[in-house]
Amino acid sequence: MILQPTSEGDFSFACDAPFKLDLGGALQPVTLRYALYGKLNARRDNAVLVCHALSGSARIADWWADMFATNGAFDVERNCYVCANILGSCYGSTSPSSIDPGTGRPYGPDFPLITIGDMIRSQALLLDHLGIDRLHAVVGGSIGGMQALQWAVDYPGRVETVVAIGATTLSAMGLALNHLQRQAIINDPAFRGGRYTEQPARGLALARAFAMLSYKSAELFTERYGRRPDRSGEDPYSSMLERFDVAGYLDHQGEKFVQRFDANSYLVISKAMDTFDLARRYASEDAALRRIRAHVLLIGITSDWLFPAADVRTLSDRMHASGVDCEYKELQSAHGHDGFLADPDQLVALMKPTLDAGHKARARVLKLV
Amino acid sequence: MILQPTSEGDFSFACDAPFKLDLGGALQPVTLRYALYGKLNARRDNAVLVCHALSGSARIADWWADMFATNGAFDVERNCYVCANILGSCYGSTSPSSIDPGTGRPYGPDFPLITIGDMIRSQALLLDHLGIDRLHAVVGGSIGGMQALQWAVDYPGRVETVVAIGATTLSAMGLALNHLQRQAIINDPAFRGGRYTEQPARGLALARAFAMLSYKSAELFTERYGRRPDRSGEDPYSSMLERFDVAGYLDHQGEKFVQRFDANSYLVISKAMDTFDLARRYASEDAALRRIRAHVLLIGITSDWLFPAADVRTLSDRMHASGVDCEYKELQSAHGHDGFLADPDQLVALMKPTLDAGHKARARVLKLV
Repeated sequence: MILQPTSEGDFSFACDAPFKLDLGGALQPVTLRYALYGKLNARRDNAVLVCHALSGSARIADWWADMFATNGAFDVERNCYVCANILGSCYGSTSPSSIDPGTGRPYGPDFPLITIGDMIRSQALLLDHLGIDRLHAVVGGSIGGMQALQWAVDYPGRVETVVAIGATTLSAMGLALNHLQRQAIINDPAFRGGRYTEQPARGLALARAFAMLSYKSAELFTERYGRRPDRSGEDPYSSMLERFDVAGYLDHQGEKFVQRFDANSYLVISKAMDTFDLARRYASEDAALRRIRAHVLLIGITSDWLFPAADVRTLSDRMHASGVDCEYKELQSAHGHDGFLADPDQLVALMKPTLDAGHKARARVLKLV
Repeated sequence: MILQPTSEGDFSFACDAPFKLDLGGALQPVTLRYALYGKLNARRDNAVLVCHALSGSARIADWWADMFATNGAFDVERNCYVCANILGSCYGSTSPSSIDPGTGRPYGPDFPLITIGDMIRSQALLLDHLGIDRLHAVVGGSIGGMQALQWAVDYPGRVETVVAIGATTLSAMGLALNHLQRQAIINDPAFRGGRYTEQPARGLALARAFAMLSYKSAELFTERYGRRPDRSGEDPYSSMLERFDVAGYLDHQGEKFVQRFDANSYLVISKAMDTFDLARRYASEDAALRRIRAHVLLIGITSDWLFPAADVRTLSDRMHASGVDCEYKELQSAHGHDGFLADPDQLVALMKPTLDAGHKARARVLKLV
């Protein structure tokens, strides 16, 4: 195992032993790029694991800076926030763009299927390495929330508090949205079955534009774009290709994404989102949920149609039925699924009491000891 | 002008004069394929114009057969139902696959932009030809509903009753959905800028799959497909390309569509949907609505997220404010936008009183005369 600071100020951790995967096969080695915010205390019991969403990275401050603001949910004076780039992602961890030691060339389409369970097992290895036995909390939204839930089930002894925002098993509509995004990439002849040298730019941009639509809400689009023509001056009434503003926005999001995210990584992570199911590998969902020892906070986002608040609430009902110490709160947001990034103040207000309560409880325990 | 029965049992009408278009340019000639169900009476005042949706045809019985059932909404003993394939569509009317007399080859991507207003102006020419001055009713869902609304505004003297189901001006979310579908087609290299000889099958199938998702509801998908694997035996946990059932369903819908609908027609009609706006060509929406003399029934579909019921209800509120004799009803359906096709019994119950009331009123008037 290697622990090395990188030039960017974050770190890489590599495990040379074969890392067996849930759905078959193994990766060897497995590298995780990770970042730390705040300091581990002597007892190493002040770590909070933050799990990022589909296109995020280990650098929490790049995508969730508001959490570190004064009176934010994260307090670097008290806790050490650990975030690892997820397995399969192109921001420094082992992914389809990594070299397959078996062939000496990038895995590409030969990269195995990864599950949310695999992601957190690799994070557990990192924590072992850092000497962190037990996490104060695991926090994440979207795929980050899936990881947080999987932590609660798979490592009941290692986590005190779990906060999962806008995350449940994907519904049929969610599976449909993901499938069509992957299809857009695979359809692009530039994809070349995953052995591209240049990104399949059109397909990946279309997939991202499609995804953005599922991360936002109709209400937000109406307010922001309405039926206004594209702001660069196109007239949608004058030719087939000239656009309304909302179309220009989506295309722009797609084009930006091609510059920063690898198409094969997108496929692998999107598929991991599909296969996330807490019941898998246990006798039933109830059996999985009964393993949980952490206090769980589930947050639904009112305008989220990718992970509807009603589905998150239902999960919380099932957790209660399975004896989990679980609370459900709702983020009132017009931003859709992206509400966990776009409405930080309200999110802080919802999360902070739960994250702070864990501290108070532990402080009491330590006093008694 | 030519009126000729075709071998399929429906008819073609051609107008050789230049047909000027709302957004510029003209078509010459304009041909409309149309079908008649029931007989025109001597006064020619028993005609009901039925307007089809994006991929429909003149043959109402092919896509709305339930309306003709015993106790259905349509009574061929009393009325003559007229339906014309819309301008731009590939089922017999002038469209991108028609021969451009200027070049001797198909219009293809040179086909001009068409509006809903153009569609109904061509229908008005057909009615002139058939000697129908005044319609008992105009009825349609989706793009058919847009046409019905446009009829109410553009030809206030020619229509007694208008029934528009799941139809309003498209919201920003609707514009976004349409844009990405068109992008899927245009992205396909087989599209060749619209000058294809073989359909851009992958792009068109993806566009249709994407559209189907917007025509259905999350609730329906959960009930029908849930997280079940594809019924043909694929295992979504075993490889990137193996699918869940909902994905198999969408792909299948896409593949079927390629066999029956032309890609350029799809673009033209999708764009007409985008540009539909009753206010356009009038001083304001209020000015447009104040022209209406027909009794208007608007029907929203509870699970429709392409044309949300709330938007249809708001249109009904604005119609009331503009002095329109308008009623609003709601179709309780889990089928999403497709509810107007999928829940015929309930739809009949909602439409029939309005369509029959028109008859009773006219019978009273005739008695007085």
